[in-house]
Formats: sequence, structure tokens, C-alpha cells
Amino acid sequence: MEYDFSTKKFTFGLWTVGNTGADPFGANVREKLSPADLVYLLGEVGAYGVNFHDNDLLPIDATPSEANHIKKAFRKALDDTGLVVPMATTNLFFDPIFKDGAFTSSDPKVRAYALQKTMNAIDLGVEFGAEIYVFWGGREGTESDATKDAVTAFKHNREAMNFLTEYVIDNGYNLRFALEAKPNEPRGNIFNATTGNMLAFIETLDHPEMVGVNPEVAHEHMAGLNFTHQVAQALDAGKLFHIDLNDQAFGRYDQDFRFGMVNLKSAFFLVKLLEDYHYSNPASFDAHAFRTEDYEGVKDFARGCMRTYMILADKVKQFNADAEIQAILAKNSAQDPAMTPFFGAYSTDKAAALKAYTFDRKTIAARSLQYEKIDQLTNEILLGVR
Amino acid sequence: MEYDFSTKKFTFGLWTVGNTGADPFGANVREKLSPADLVYLLGEVGAYGVNFHDNDLLPIDATPSEANHIKKAFRKALDDTGLVVPMATTNLFFDPIFKDGAFTSSDPKVRAYALQKTMNAIDLGVEFGAEIYVFWGGREGTESDATKDAVTAFKHNREAMNFLTEYVIDNGYNLRFALEAKPNEPRGNIFNATTGNMLAFIETLDHPEMVGVNPEVAHEHMAGLNFTHQVAQALDAGKLFHIDLNDQAFGRYDQDFRFGMVNLKSAFFLVKLLEDYHYSNPASFDAHAFRTEDYEGVKDFARGCMRTYMILADKVKQFNADAEIQAILAKNSAQDPAMTPFFGAYSTDKAAALKAYTFDRKTIAARSLQYEKIDQLTNEILLGVR
Amino acid sequence: MEYDFSTKKFTFGLWTVGNTGADPFGANVREKLSPADLVYLLGEVGAYGVNFHDNDLLPIDATPSEANHIKKAFRKALDDTGLVVPMATTNLFFDPIFKDGAFTSSDPKVRAYALQKTMNAIDLGVEFGAEIYVFWGGREGTESDATKDAVTAFKHNREAMNFLTEYVIDNGYNLRFALEAKPNEPRGNIFNATTGNMLAFIETLDHPEMVGVNPEVAHEHMAGLNFTHQVAQALDAGKLFHIDLNDQAFGRYDQDFRFGMVNLKSAFFLVKLLEDYHYSNPASFDAHAFRTEDYEGVKDFARGCMRTYMILADKVKQFNADAEIQAILAKNSAQDPAMTPFFGAYSTDKAAALKAYTFDRKTIAARSLQYEKIDQLTNEILLGVR
Amino acid sequence: MEYDFSTKKFTFGLWTVGNTGADPFGANVREKLSPADLVYLLGEVGAYGVNFHDNDLLPIDATPSEANHIKKAFRKALDDTGLVVPMATTNLFFDPIFKDGAFTSSDPKVRAYALQKTMNAIDLGVEFGAEIYVFWGGREGTESDATKDAVTAFKHNREAMNFLTEYVIDNGYNLRFALEAKPNEPRGNIFNATTGNMLAFIETLDHPEMVGVNPEVAHEHMAGLNFTHQVAQALDAGKLFHIDLNDQAFGRYDQDFRFGMVNLKSAFFLVKLLEDYHYSNPASFDAHAFRTEDYEGVKDFARGCMRTYMILADKVKQFNADAEIQAILAKNSAQDPAMTPFFGAYSTDKAAALKAYTFDRKTIAARSLQYEKIDQLTNEILLGVR
Repeated sequence: MEYDFSTKKFTFGLWTVGNTGADPFGANVREKLSPADLVYLLGEVGAYGVNFHDNDLLPIDATPSEANHIKKAFRKALDDTGLVVPMATTNLFFDPIFKDGAFTSSDPKVRAYALQKTMNAIDLGVEFGAEIYVFWGGREGTESDATKDAVTAFKHNREAMNFLTEYVIDNGYNLRFALEAKPNEPRGNIFNATTGNMLAFIETLDHPEMVGVNPEVAHEHMAGLNFTHQVAQALDAGKLFHIDLNDQAFGRYDQDFRFGMVNLKSAFFLVKLLEDYHYSNPASFDAHAFRTEDYEGVKDFARGCMRTYMILADKVKQFNADAEIQAILAKNSAQDPAMTPFFGAYSTDKAAALKAYTFDRKTIAARSLQYEKIDQLTNEILLGVR
Repeated sequence: MEYDFSTKKFTFGLWTVGNTGADPFGANVREKLSPADLVYLLGEVGAYGVNFHDNDLLPIDATPSEANHIKKAFRKALDDTGLVVPMATTNLFFDPIFKDGAFTSSDPKVRAYALQKTMNAIDLGVEFGAEIYVFWGGREGTESDATKDAVTAFKHNREAMNFLTEYVIDNGYNLRFALEAKPNEPRGNIFNATTGNMLAFIETLDHPEMVGVNPEVAHEHMAGLNFTHQVAQALDAGKLFHIDLNDQAFGRYDQDFRFGMVNLKSAFFLVKLLEDYHYSNPASFDAHAFRTEDYEGVKDFARGCMRTYMILADKVKQFNADAEIQAILAKNSAQDPAMTPFFGAYSTDKAAALKAYTFDRKTIAARSLQYEKIDQLTNEILLGVR
Repeated sequence: MEYDFSTKKFTFGLWTVGNTGADPFGANVREKLSPADLVYLLGEVGAYGVNFHDNDLLPIDATPSEANHIKKAFRKALDDTGLVVPMATTNLFFDPIFKDGAFTSSDPKVRAYALQKTMNAIDLGVEFGAEIYVFWGGREGTESDATKDAVTAFKHNREAMNFLTEYVIDNGYNLRFALEAKPNEPRGNIFNATTGNMLAFIETLDHPEMVGVNPEVAHEHMAGLNFTHQVAQALDAGKLFHIDLNDQAFGRYDQDFRFGMVNLKSAFFLVKLLEDYHYSNPASFDAHAFRTEDYEGVKDFARGCMRTYMILADKVKQFNADAEIQAILAKNSAQDPAMTPFFGAYSTDKAAALKAYTFDRKTIAARSLQYEKIDQLTNEILLGVR
Repeated sequence: MEYDFSTKKFTFGLWTVGNTGADPFGANVREKLSPADLVYLLGEVGAYGVNFHDNDLLPIDATPSEANHIKKAFRKALDDTGLVVPMATTNLFFDPIFKDGAFTSSDPKVRAYALQKTMNAIDLGVEFGAEIYVFWGGREGTESDATKDAVTAFKHNREAMNFLTEYVIDNGYNLRFALEAKPNEPRGNIFNATTGNMLAFIETLDHPEMVGVNPEVAHEHMAGLNFTHQVAQALDAGKLFHIDLNDQAFGRYDQDFRFGMVNLKSAFFLVKLLEDYHYSNPASFDAHAFRTEDYEGVKDFARGCMRTYMILADKVKQFNADAEIQAILAKNSAQDPAMTPFFGAYSTDKAAALKAYTFDRKTIAARSLQYEKIDQLTNEILLGVR
């Protein structure tokens, strides 16, 4: 069955389809493709856009003429394929200079360099049309908390974010920031470990209105957290500026598997949340193909990510239209006229009335919620037997 | 060696030393003691204060005269021992009425009852002098996300918190709220899974200034998160209103072990943070004795919690005074006059100057940070061989 | 859609459908049913058999006449419904006497009592026709390894198993043992944490031929392990005497959810293994309904377990008949005539020939395995869109 | 304080002190040293021996003359420093040919090549005196169980081990095998995930007497398992042929930290087990220095591993000599003359006598075990305040 991906803003980073299959225990299995080649590959599979770290596009030591050459070829590929660049980001983790962090390094030289590199990378992203700028501080953390004071690290991180929001304003860029949390790897412990930490951190910034989050499935799963709940909080706060879709078993190394690869049910609940709340920013598949694959396998991987999203979106419609499920949900959350006076804005009288009300605890407790039934029906929708 | 606990505000909940050793696979091993008896036990071991859920003190179905009797005996025990009640909280999880949550239940009757119960419990806490009121929403969550919309749950939770802060203001209580996160257990997934999520949630409330957090070691460890970093963020935000100390292996059921029982090193880094930042609110040992223990063992447990804190606080002084460690840390974070102009408030000129600066990446990267040495010296301080 | 459960030996323990919804943070939500009532409930939902711990059937302090009465009613219910009792087991964890273990307790009185209790429970199981006897040593472990020597614990455990196999032989019982591993909860660490540990332990017993394993999905998932691989090893060793089906997120408290509740894909791979290898011993759903449920919900839960197995068994047939998938698998594992001489029994000449052979590493490495495609097709079979 | 390492067989792999600090998110931070240089470094810090994978010593494409040159320099370094090579192993994971496994690859060419490579690597190890040969099957596993049948994989793995034990016998090598388990990374799931699985697997081999295990702290910790219990089972089975010491937080990526870096208490219990049972095979520190370090930091790392072991070994002596702890332990496990007749070999009479005995469950259950006290005293020994 074919799916029309054009109704969604499906994007891939250059580093995802461009991943060469190396890992800590093994060498590259796929030859490196140029940024332009990767854009053509993404065009072939039907993606909407492509994202990049500065150094995915331009090597850190590229000369101006090398940079120019690469950018020209990349631009042409974008034009040829119709792909856009909705998001860009900075690589603040690969180079040895960041061995102990970038914005939170103890070394002021490193912190200053990180700012410089990010300003340049923002310029590059904006040059290609990015309207979302992601921050993933892969090296902002510690192995041993003897080595660095965490409160100071928060302050350093905030200083950097404040500086960079001002830089964006000063340059009149149409750019919002999206902060991406991760609990660990490559650092033993990364600061702002969860999307919740990031949402809280944002509120301490000078320009919180410019800053949202970029939650990633795999990152919350590494901590064994319910990703859908993290995303729901971001939605509730109006902060879901971008999202990274992939998959990952709980409590494991960073796996970055194809969307839905590990757990179709949790993927379904996520898609349901995004569809129900009409999420319309880009959905970026921040994942890579297995090490067993060649570039045909990379295309299988990329198409699989998008197909799974579309299949699950259809299942969401089915779930929302399922009369049996919806009847139970409606019954469970039915308004109760006797209770209505107790909700809404506080008043002294309301509190007094509520305190005076007699609840029949046993009767209320005895209500059947039929959650086993709802969940089993959900499973059967997912399995296509309903 | 003896330690003087009186310099710290060490508290225990009635439910901690009063835990009877039951678990999902086993019956009580210790007979239940009365609240007053538990206060005397805490007095004997040298605690500063005692905390309670409403139903730790008063059974949910206590008659007014039963309640009076219990309160009188409890008050007398407090007077006899000199213990105070710095914190109180509501049991919104044990009774079957809360089987699908309290503030986030789909059922408006349950939500209303939860508000009523909390208002009464606040009154009770204030009656005994509590200035901190903790919220742990043990049933606010889902097993299956088919059963409840998480965004709606956030809204319900916020409505409850807003109502209750108004209630406190209306009554002129000197009371602040402290929200306690937990990722799961007893629910499959609990909303606001981490302290970070709670800090973010607070910023969406009507009276954020009245609301802080009560992080608990075990709860963040269940998600394999660095607890010290979570606490650091709360400190950084001025929101560390209370703290629950205990211990727990990562990725396991809720163990609530004696402070320092599992990992002395992570306990040390936590104590270091609290001491370095002069934390002076109560430190509550939210833990219980092993099932193998009688009440003498419960006292061993309680004394052990406090002793370990004091021992680690001494180690913090030693660490802070260790010339070799401090020299490395100072060297690593030394200011660099060439960099100073790039920090502080943003300006167009500053950005331009920074962009124009040439960094010698390789030289900066080559700096030795001596983190293996710092961490090993820390271990040797902890082991008492330095 | 209806499924015919009668082709499978689906069983439930009395403790599963009889679970009253209590947990460490909450009281019972369902009233306790008698063993006979539970048998009728299981008959209604279409189960094949029922299992029990001694004290599920007979309270630990039951008088002979009480026991007789209960057994008579239970027998009648079995006769009325046609259910059988394929498996029985001992409760060696609930009573306070087992607070520090049963067979591995440091106290010889406890070890002796555990043997006595198990002999009696074996008699009871055999009385009702059980041919499999499960051992789950829920209290055999430690919180702190300062309290007990683990090697000694292994010896104690072995002594008990040897004694009890002799008891079975001596009595001429047609009974095999199945050992069930769990990594933790209720103990901080349980000995023989995984099915692998149990398989290894069996080989040190006097009668290994009488002893196999009873792997449980949730228990291996608590350690984040691939359950299918554990079961495969048991199958490979001829030791899969029984299996406990349920579900559980990785790295969490013991959740005992409905089969397939958390992860349909891992459930599918498990069913595939069992079906492909024609597993024909009982499949026991060792799980319980959510705390939100009444007994109608318990029936939904029980039916859901069995339905999910049957649906997945159908998917296994589809997978095995899928020409595209099977072609890739066949291609990947095709025999190579040049290699055939190198396999099979060792010989000096074979080793020499193999050492002399020149492999073209790059060409071999370049083969595309199409694992992304296989896995995505599997997902689409599971989702019912293929 | 200085420690004398010469009483222990402390070894390091070439890949440990030779690790250049690269990880999936970052480039090398330390330049690569030659094998000979690494031996000198190990000599400087006081190690007993050095281990290697074939390709740590000889690049996979080394010409005979290159190989000769490297071996000569390596031999000289060994002679100069007095270091020995107690263990060697095969790299069956780095080259792309092993992208889907070595011994368990679906491709017979890969399986044959893996045998060939291992025979050559065994020859190389024996040439340098190795008496232990480790097998770590880093690529033997799956991401998706749709791609490979696990039972077949076990058979392939067994065939390889049987072939290779015969090879060793045929060549008259004085060499034993030690199998090393790991649950995941770099594969999604690795077969034989725990030491328990390996011990069970060994019993299915043709020459189990030649094969033991090489447990690694970090690998069991990745699955959140108690490492000491895994090692105890290996000791109990006479299979602890080798051990890999390092450290790692539970449920995380493969961290390979300095021994004792994460959890001094679990390291203590491990050292206690090894010392109490007079383990005398090599103890290999399979770890690497932080990415923040230069080669001086690598030496700090290596010395720290050994110092921590020695410090903990001293603590073991103190624990074993602590009268208060030992008195409690003795009391808890005291023999009971009334029970003695019930233990030892089974007999019909013994079973009958035991069944007839009346146990006073409540009295036995009421015994205080003082485990909180034992554990707190252990903590205070560890902290050096007792």
C-alpha cells in the first residue's frame, strides 16, 4: 500500500541518512555521501526537508572556497528536489575542544569558541532558510560531579542562550530555538536530562518566548520515561517547536532506530497526541539505518519511518471513530452537575461548599473504568483485526 | 564515633519509621505503632521533626472523637520530645477512590473529593505547624495512554494546584507547596515524571512563587537520572523548598533504602551540593527499614540515615579543603583576560569581536583536565585513606 | 472476531484473576473471590487450566476441616468447568518467616520449614493432577551483600532442590520442576537473576533431567533483557518446561500486565518462537488486571491475554508465508558449497584447509542483508496493512 | 599512601590504556600509541600483564613483515618491563564483515572466516604465552528478531566453540577459554546476555571442562544486575577463569569507567568475594580513561584502578575482623541441633520426620537479623570512620 507523505513535514538530518554505520565497536560500513547526494536520496524517498549541523554541511576546517563549492552543490540539490531546510543546529560535541562541554565548559576559551561557532552556524542555517534552530548539548555534563559544579553549569548554559537569542534578535532573523534533552551518552550524565528539565530551564531565560523544545523519542526512552507525556507537557506549554522521531528500547545505549522499530504502541500514542493536537511543525526522523544495510537499505529505512507514521495516523482516525472505545471514554469523563459548582476559579464560598459536601467514597470507587477493554481494543486496532 | 544531628533539620515521615515491612509479596513483619509512639521513637534517635500524610495521623474514616484522641496524644509526644512538624501532605493514593488518579482523575467527583481531602489535610498540617506542604501524585498517571489524554490531565492538575494555592492565601496560612516527581509505580507512568517536569509545571501555575519542589533521590534514580543535577536545577531556580533523602538502585522498583545504602558516592555529591549552597530547609529521610528488621532495626536505620549525612558532610569539608583537588579545579576554570570581553550582556560589537577572534582549537583541546585524578582523589577521601 | 482458545493450553494462576488490585501504595479494590469462584470465572472466559500456590488454595493456617471444605469446592468447580491443574507451586515469600529467604535463609529453621512446606505443597499439587512444579524464590536474595555470602546461598539452594527431587522420585510422582528467575523485587537482588542463571544452576543439581525453567516475560524485561533470546536458550537446551506470559516495560517495578500490553512486537517474536518450535506445554498468563477494574474488567483482561496470543499466532503464519520476507531470509543464509568442507566435526586437515583459504573480506562485507526491509515488513504485518 | 600491586595479577588490555577517547559523538582526543609504547606505559604504572585482541597487536591487513616488526617491538617491551600476556582474544566485531555477527552470522562465509581468524589469533596469543583465551561476541545478536532465528544462532555458536576447543587440543595448547557476556551494544540484543547464560551455554559444549567465563562488571550493570551474584555463581561452578573489572551505572551505554568510579560499595562486595574465595587468576581492568584526559591522565586512570582494588582489599580484611559484624553474622547463621537431622542426603525417613516436625512460625519470623546495622557498619568501614 502506498502512502502520501506530502501532507506531513517529514524531514531527515544529513547525519541520519548519511550515517555510515560506524559505532564504538566497528568501522564504517557505508561510504560517505556528499550533502548534495544525500538531498537527492531524500528527494527520491519523498521527504519534505533536510536538516543539518554546521559540520554536516561544511567540514570544521573547510576553506571559504571549499565551503562555497559545497554550499552551491547543496543549494542546487535543494532546488532540484524541492526539499527545504526547516531546521539547523551546531555540532558542539565532535571536536576535541568540546571534550568537557561547550557552553558549560569550565574553560572560558571553550565557552567563547562555542558561542562563535554557534553564531556562524546560525548564519549558515538562516542562509538556507531554517526557521528552527536546535540545541543539543551532547557534551554538557559530567562523568564525575567532583569535576564541575552543576549550578555554575546551569548559569553558563543560560548565559550562552541569552547571548544567542539576542544575536538572533539583533540580526532580525526569523528563527526560534528548540532545546533537545538527553540524559546521558556521550557524557556519563548530561545536564537538563529530560524535556521537563529543558522546559523549566527555558523559563529562566531572558527570552523564553523565543525558546521551545525538540523532544526526541530515543532520549526519553533511554531514561525509561513515557515520551508521550513529555511531549504533552511541551504542547500544554506551547513549546513544541520541533520533534525528533525515532525509536529505542528503555535503558539502553543511544540506538536511534527507525520510527516504530521497537514499540509500535508507544509510537501510536505519540502520533495520536500529535494528530489530535494538530502538530504542524516539522517531524524529523533523527535515526539511522542498521549497520547491516547498504544505501538501498538506507532508503528502506527512510521510507519505513514515514510509512509507519502514516499507518499510525490512520489508526488514530480509527481509534477516534471507534464507537465502543469513545463511549467508554465519554462515560468515564462525563460531567457531573453536582460537581460543577466546585470547579473553576477559587472562592471562599466554593471552598466552604466543597468542604461541606459529603462524598460516597465507596460508590465512587466502585465505578468500572473498563481500561482493560479500552487497551485491548486499542491493541486490536493496532493489529488490524478490528 | 558520635555525630551531633542538631545542626541539621533531619526529619522522618510517620510512614517511614512506621512502615511495617509489608510489600507486594509479603505481609507485615512489624506491628503497627501509633503516631505518638513513632514520635517517641524519633525523639530517641535524635530527629528534628516528623512529617505526615493526613491518614498517617488520622485514619480516613476516623470519627471526630477518635481524631481528637489521636491528635492529643500526638501533640503530647511532640511536646515531650521537642520534635516539630515542618511538613505535611495528603494521601491521595491509598483509597480505592483514587484508583485512576486524584486531581487528574477523569471523574469530576474524584477530582472534587481530592480537593476537599487536601483542604482538610492542609488545615491539619497547619494545625501542627507545617510550613511546607508536599504534593506527591502517586496515582496521577496511566498504564495505557488510550485511557486518558495527557494534556487534559495537565490542565486538571493545574486547576487543582491553582485552587489550593488560593485556599492557602485565603486562609492566611504561612505555607508553601513542594511538588514531588516520580516516574512510575504505582502507576505504569506518572505525569510530571521528573523534578524537571515539576519545575516546568510550576511556571504554568497562577502562583508560581508559592510552589517549589521536593525532589526524592529514589524517584530520580528509578529513571536512572543524576539526582544531584536535578537538585542543582531546583536550587538554581530558587525552588528547593524541601528534599527527600533515601537511596535506590537505578531502574528498579521503589526501594526507599536508607540514605547512602546503595551508592555512597552519589550521596556524597548530593550532600556536597546541599552544603555548598547552604541548604537549610528540612532534609527528610523518606525511606524505611528492611523487612528483616524489628523496631531496634528501625532505629538503626534511622540513625544510619543521619550518621551517613553527617559523615559525608565532613567529607565535603575535606574535599573543599584539599589543596591538590582545589588547585586542579582552579586551574581548569581560571579566567582568561582575552575572553572576558566576550562574556556578559550581548552587544552587536561584542558579537562582531567574538566572530572575528581566532581560536587555536588544537591547543585549547589539548589542555589536560585531570578529571581521572580528581575523581580518584574524591574516592580516596570517601574511603578515608587520604 | 472470535478466536478458538481450545487449541492451546492457556492457564491462569488463582493469584492472577484473583488479584484484588492492592499494591504498595493502595488497598484492595476488588473483593476476594474463593478458589472455586475463580475457577468458574476462568471457565467462563475459556481457559484450559488453573495453577496455584499452596496458600492460594489453602490459607497457611487452615485447619484440616477448612482445607477439606475448600478442596471439595475447588474440585467441584474443576469438574463443572472441565479445567485442569497443570502446574502448582509453593508460596515461600509471603509469610514473615521468609523475610530473609526460604531455601537460602541463613537460619536453618527457616530452611527446614521451607522444605517441609514445599513437600506438603507438592503433595497438594499432585493431588490435583499437577505435572509441573514451579519454584520462584522471591525472597532468595539480598539487599546488602554484607549480610550473606552468595556462594553459600547457591549451595543452600542446591541442597534444597536435590532434596526435593529425591522426594518426588521417592513418592513416584509424575512431576517435573520448573525454575523461575527474577532479578529483583521484592528483594533488592534475587539470586539466579535470569533464566540463563537458572539453566546454569540446573546443571549443578543431582537430577538435572527433572528440572527445567519457567521463564516469565516481565522478569527478564525488568532487567531490560530480550525475553525471546532467553526462551530460545531454554528451548535449545530442552528445558522449556513451562512459560509465564505477561508484559512489562523494561527497567521498572514488577508490572505483570496483560500479555502484549506494553510491546506487541516483542510479544510477536516470542509467539513466533513458541509456534515455530511447536511448544506444547502450558502457557500461563501470570498477570493481573489493572487496579481500575472490577471483575468484568478481570474477564476482559483474561480474554485479552488469550486473544492477543491467538492474533499473534495468526501473524506468525503470515510472516512464515510471506514470500518477500522468506526470500530475503533464504538468500541471507544460503549455503555456500565452498564453505561446506569447513563445517561439521573438527579435523586437523579441516583446520589446515580453512587456515589456507583466502577470504575476500570486502566483498563478503558488502552483501546487503535488507534487515531494514524485513523489519519494516514485519511491522506492517503486525499492523495488519500487508 | 602507596600500595604494593605485585601481590595481584593486575592486567590491562592494549585497547584500554590505548583507547584514544573517541566515541560515537566525538573524534580521537589522544594520539594512538604503538603496542610496545603501551607496554612501557603499563610497566611504568606497575601492572602485571597485558592482554590483546589480535588486531590490537597486528592490524587486520598487516603484511608478514609489518607483523614481524610489531611483534619484535612488543616482545622487547615485554622483556624490558617484565610484563606477561596472560590472556588474548579475537576482534570479531570491528571489521564490516562482522556487521551481522561472526560465529552466528547467517552467512557461512562469515562463519568460516571467523573460525579462521580465531585460529590465527589463538596461535598469536599462545605465541606470547597466553593461557586464557577470551571470547566476546560483540556482534552475535540482533536488532530485530525477524532477521534471525535465535535457536539456530545458539547452534552456530556451539559449533564454533566445539571446533575451536578441538583446535586447541589438537595443537596441544595450554589454553582455556573464557566466555564474556554482554546484554547489548553494539547489537540491539546480544545472545547469551548474562554470565548466567554463558554458564548454561558452556554445559552444552563438547568440552565444557575447557571453558569458563570472563564476567565484566559493566556488562552485567548494563542490565542492572548484581555483578557479585553473577561472579558467585561462576565461582560456585568452578568457572571463574578470568574477570574484567571496571565500572558502569545501571541501564546505560557501555561506559567502561575506572574500577570503583561509579559505586564503591558494589566494588567492595566484589573484591570481598574474590578475596574470600582466594581468586588468583588475572584481574583485568577492561576500562578506559575519560575523554578529558591526556596520557598522564591515562596513567592516573590505570593507577586508580589498582589502588582502589587494594584499598578495598584492606577494607575486606577489616570487615572480616570486625567483631560486631561477625558476631551478628554468626548468630544469624548459627546451626540448630534440632534441625541438623533434616539436612544432608534425602531419605524417606528424613522426609517423614521433617513433615512431622512442628515449626513455631511466629517465633522464627520474629528473630531480628540486624541487617540495617550490618550494612551501616559496612558503610562506615568503607568511609573509613570505623
